[in-house]
Amino acid sequence: MATPSPGHSITYRVAAPASFSASTDLAAVIADHGAALTALDVIESTRSELVVDVSCDTRGPDHAQEIEQALAALDGVDVRKSSDRTFLLHLGGKLESTPTVTLKNRDDLSRAYTPGVARVCQAIAENPEDARRLTIKRNTVAVVTDGSAVLGLGNIGPEASMPVMEGKAVLFKQFADVDAWPVALDTQDTEEIIAVCKAIAPAYGGINLEDISAPRCFEIEARLRDELDIPVFHDDQHGTAIVTLAALTNALKVVEKQLSDVRIVVSGAGAAGHAIVKLLLAAGAHDVVVCGRSGALTSTQEHADPHRAWLAQHTNPRGVTGSLKEAVVGADVFIGVSAPDLLDEADIAAMAEGSIVFAMSNPDPEVDPAAASRHAAVIATGRSDYPNQINNVLAFPGFFRGLLDAHCHDITDEMLRVAAEAIAETIADDELNAGHIIPSVFDPRVATNVAEAVAGVARQEAGSAEGSADTDDAARRNGRTAAPTSAEAAR
Amino acid sequence: MATPSPGHSITYRVAAPASFSASTDLAAVIADHGAALTALDVIESTRSELVVDVSCDTRGPDHAQEIEQALAALDGVDVRKSSDRTFLLHLGGKLESTPTVTLKNRDDLSRAYTPGVARVCQAIAENPEDARRLTIKRNTVAVVTDGSAVLGLGNIGPEASMPVMEGKAVLFKQFADVDAWPVALDTQDTEEIIAVCKAIAPAYGGINLEDISAPRCFEIEARLRDELDIPVFHDDQHGTAIVTLAALTNALKVVEKQLSDVRIVVSGAGAAGHAIVKLLLAAGAHDVVVCGRSGALTSTQEHADPHRAWLAQHTNPRGVTGSLKEAVVGADVFIGVSAPDLLDEADIAAMAEGSIVFAMSNPDPEVDPAAASRHAAVIATGRSDYPNQINNVLAFPGFFRGLLDAHCHDITDEMLRVAAEAIAETIADDELNAGHIIPSVFDPRVATNVAEAVAGVARQEAGSAEGSADTDDAARRNGRTAAPTSAEAAR
Repeated sequence: MATPSPGHSITYRVAAPASFSASTDLAAVIADHGAALTALDVIESTRSELVVDVSCDTRGPDHAQEIEQALAALDGVDVRKSSDRTFLLHLGGKLESTPTVTLKNRDDLSRAYTPGVARVCQAIAENPEDARRLTIKRNTVAVVTDGSAVLGLGNIGPEASMPVMEGKAVLFKQFADVDAWPVALDTQDTEEIIAVCKAIAPAYGGINLEDISAPRCFEIEARLRDELDIPVFHDDQHGTAIVTLAALTNALKVVEKQLSDVRIVVSGAGAAGHAIVKLLLAAGAHDVVVCGRSGALTSTQEHADPHRAWLAQHTNPRGVTGSLKEAVVGADVFIGVSAPDLLDEADIAAMAEGSIVFAMSNPDPEVDPAAASRHAAVIATGRSDYPNQINNVLAFPGFFRGLLDAHCHDITDEMLRVAAEAIAETIADDELNAGHIIPSVFDPRVATNVAEAVAGVARQEAGSAEGSADTDDAARRNGRTAAPTSAEAAR
Repeated sequence: MATPSPGHSITYRVAAPASFSASTDLAAVIADHGAALTALDVIESTRSELVVDVSCDTRGPDHAQEIEQALAALDGVDVRKSSDRTFLLHLGGKLESTPTVTLKNRDDLSRAYTPGVARVCQAIAENPEDARRLTIKRNTVAVVTDGSAVLGLGNIGPEASMPVMEGKAVLFKQFADVDAWPVALDTQDTEEIIAVCKAIAPAYGGINLEDISAPRCFEIEARLRDELDIPVFHDDQHGTAIVTLAALTNALKVVEKQLSDVRIVVSGAGAAGHAIVKLLLAAGAHDVVVCGRSGALTSTQEHADPHRAWLAQHTNPRGVTGSLKEAVVGADVFIGVSAPDLLDEADIAAMAEGSIVFAMSNPDPEVDPAAASRHAAVIATGRSDYPNQINNVLAFPGFFRGLLDAHCHDITDEMLRVAAEAIAETIADDELNAGHIIPSVFDPRVATNVAEAVAGVARQEAGSAEGSADTDDAARRNGRTAAPTSAEAAR
């Protein structure tokens, strides 16, 4: 049975007859019905009546309904309304477009808008690269989706995907001061998505593709990387790959094994699996076996899908055949980005000594973490209610911060690798243990470390010509509120 | 010769030998060279040296250079740097994407993002209209351009148009709390622009087309109005038409004439001219003559362009022929949205007694306002340095506020008309005079009045079914910072 979750937090406004035990009685109902009481605020108190806001985490809508009825069944109690705190949080959307300048008078207006703005436009027309200095392109990323593969919900379309894209933009801003804007597209045609991204690109310093289903996501990403001069990141691939490599790096330290030596089995040959394998190989892994629905991919099979064919060609050096369950026998590492309940306790027991299990299918992992923990040395999942959550939030904000600071035009494997390294190294050796291989998403060092690592590689790859790009930007970010005259002359 | 303008404001940081007259000497240089001193701040003062920030409005880059050299020529004076205040204002762009929620801990994260967000997505998937309640669609407008007709600069492309689009978004937010986002498109193909607008529409509650050249702008607007269920406004047409009608309404009061009686000549058959004429006719004007480059349009001519043909069919009831100069003889009203210096003082003198002249070509009007003022009773221009500025900022923020509040799907002529009326009526009868026919863009009543008028018509047209739509929204805007439990239950 599901446990009560803050994602299902409800606040009931309840009027009860004033009595010494009124609040206690209400709290007792919550406890009796297996919900988790989180707050109890008396809103109004008279001689005869008490109005109380009772907040609790429930297991879901049915459970919330059951509790409401139980409260209403108390003698003299009236439930005036129930508020779903998750929906309240999303009401009206989660983003604003906020000016960084205030127009107090006509002079301000004539500088920010006509006629003064014309000179700024002309400067960019003469030197388009100035757009990164004089427009929001400097710090803004498009979060692009077609709503075809949203969370575990599948193809729910663009409108319904917006709460996720807005949430993503919130995370970009909060964790790395990146301005991100949701672009939820009312088309699932590959060519049309590519055309739209190319058309809207002038305003943006980067594109984050999100929740677009495979195999279209590969084509879209590859084409945009070729045809645009701003970096294109597919979070479901690259974000997941970065955080997985980071977690694996630290897990291997815990079990004292080397990436180049271990046998790795990856379950899932979709977007995430593909990107994880590519990055593992780039980072020095040799023995990787990828399992799709019909078992291990081998180079002797024919694969119509070019991405699957690539995987088959570049993995499985020992020519392992058979099912996933057969493949994990003797393996050091299991990485699951596939489906719930593919493995059981016996499968984990059959892995090598000191095994590492990343069961990231969400919300239901490939193997029950509790069962796996009886045999594996290190376990990670995609969930926040177990230790070691593999969460993309650790990667994408800092990654784009680095790209923007270095005025990047492309993303390379080396950037992904150093981002993973930066996340892993955020945990000091003396903090590292099987229950703590990956930092908290709220650790403020993560985004900074990732950004510096990515920008460093970017500058190295671009040569020293663009070396000073981020100094200006850092000054700008820190100096946003400084008096204009203390900044450098703009022209 | 141009006059000094705040759009060309420069701040010089100057080190001068400490002396009783140092500041005065610097100020004298500014005055001697015809610039307007706006500020003089002593930054640092020692026994031997004074560091001063000298700010002044100049006539342009050459003038600024001349002043810098003159300052440097003073005995012992060193100009450490000069800062162009307009460029400083635009540095890094003028917009941010700002979260309306803060994620302080894991519980916040699980409500705003995964897993809690999934329920919000599902609610929208089941009822797409909920996107207006639970996403930024509620309050967000796309400012769409292809950079083909930007200000007086022409076809400067998408990157260079961004400072204007960002400025527009700043005005939307500051004057009417509308979240606007720039969409600067790297295509000038009509079909592609239409396809992109349709594709990005799910995130937006309205589209503001901006600075797209005629005749493509007509086709794009018409098609999007047909094919989208959110309102589509073309500011260069509808914004200009609204403010022109507002100004004309009040100007006619000043000269005590009726719209239905006066002879009106419109110079310019482009996007703005077309929209102005349509709205004038809808508001009750009868005698309108439109002049293009080759003179008055008449119904006896053949016009390949359908918009020009429409104008020819619906105007010029007296069959006036000949040039613009001939057409204005005896006219009561001249409205210019065309090109500089088409008329001279004699032409204005030849108009009817109590004539009204709106010379809106920018920055150089169709007729010199000083010359026109010797004969016309009321004069307006597009410039901020003359009285009676016809400025679209008076219309678009409040107009979209009204559209969003009423959950509008379409824009009607009646909405444009009442918006004009609302702007005109913001000036009380006892404030009205020839030098004050239109309110200041900083008059906070304007946007509110326009919004209420537009929303009122929208609700009337939609029937009473959607009548309460804006009450929720107003509550939401006012209650953004209120505790969640004091808001209405979301489900």
